[in-house]
Amino acid sequence: MKYIKIPPATIYRLSRYSRKLSLLSREGLEVVSSEKLAAECGVNSAQLRKDLAYFGEFGVRGVGYYTGHLLQHIKNILGLEKEWRLGLFGVGNLGQALLHYPNFINQGYRFVAAFDVDSGKIGQTLGSGLEISDMKDITEVVSREPFEIGVITTPAGGAQQVVELAIEAGVKGILNFAPVILRVPGDVVVEYVDFTLRLDSLSYYLSNR
Amino acid sequence: MKYIKIPPATIYRLSRYSRKLSLLSREGLEVVSSEKLAAECGVNSAQLRKDLAYFGEFGVRGVGYYTGHLLQHIKNILGLEKEWRLGLFGVGNLGQALLHYPNFINQGYRFVAAFDVDSGKIGQTLGSGLEISDMKDITEVVSREPFEIGVITTPAGGAQQVVELAIEAGVKGILNFAPVILRVPGDVVVEYVDFTLRLDSLSYYLSNR
Repeated sequence: MKYIKIPPATIYRLSRYSRKLSLLSREGLEVVSSEKLAAECGVNSAQLRKDLAYFGEFGVRGVGYYTGHLLQHIKNILGLEKEWRLGLFGVGNLGQALLHYPNFINQGYRFVAAFDVDSGKIGQTLGSGLEISDMKDITEVVSREPFEIGVITTPAGGAQQVVELAIEAGVKGILNFAPVILRVPGDVVVEYVDFTLRLDSLSYYLSNR
Repeated sequence: MKYIKIPPATIYRLSRYSRKLSLLSREGLEVVSSEKLAAECGVNSAQLRKDLAYFGEFGVRGVGYYTGHLLQHIKNILGLEKEWRLGLFGVGNLGQALLHYPNFINQGYRFVAAFDVDSGKIGQTLGSGLEISDMKDITEVVSREPFEIGVITTPAGGAQQVVELAIEAGVKGILNFAPVILRVPGDVVVEYVDFTLRLDSLSYYLSNR
């Protein structure tokens, strides 16, 4: 299905709702009010209802939401009913931490390949059982072990080149931790995780109050 | 100085501008057009001019921006003329990767303390020379080695309690990597870094196109 013009902030909030619903559902809660769900996700209930209204009518008046039912709907919207496979580019400290990050696998994201350019690392087998491949073998690795999303943890200087190789090999989604803006074709989606941007924002708010 | 009603997205973009200006300045470029600076930061020049206009008039008509001059202004706006001290809460894989993350120190952020609750880790000295302190000694550690920003890399379940201890000890800014919404007093600022939120967003855009 194709939804149009959904604000990116709505997508992020859907992700938060699904995570909270999943927790409530595991705790055995079958019904939740929009007020409670919203409060636990740090938004107000009008925002929650507006976000959900882009996709249909999920609440039951006077009752609230059936947790399992709403969770399933949001997972369908976000495309989370399948497992997504990840390839890691850059096996440094941050890359290794991400390979072991428990929330990825808990939420349906699994690393199936890891690449580096350092000949001292290539061929090593990581704790998770993944062997570090040479960046230049990417096409071969992807054909053997396909993945949809590339996670970039190279230094800033190397990121653009690595992303171009990944895209050539068929990767369509990029989660970029390198502190640099990437140039990609229109059919490739990039999400940025930039720690220092967030720290600069803290610096701003702590300085100006 | 206090600026009011600046959109958070503007603050993030200022951070990107300052990083790019810093690079251009190191490369010896004394003047840059708004078109070039904007393009290198992945925005259009109207957006760049609008962002800067919140804070004053920095460009020279027909010339562009003096890189060093504009960089200094943006650093002043963001509060980056000083060094910010960080305390790490949770010395796991991710925490250790952050301690060694080169862009923090390059951009004026320095870890001065690290905490854990694991008695096997407490008292160990890290590669960076930092000794891991017991979370319950936070008040004493902060009085000896003050820091303004707490970086939270505990599991989701422990984050709220840790943040409350940090706030009690006087920390006013929180960079939260734990996948949970924190409840904090009004004078405390929180920024979130949530990897799976970004992956869910990629999942959405890759599924719906």
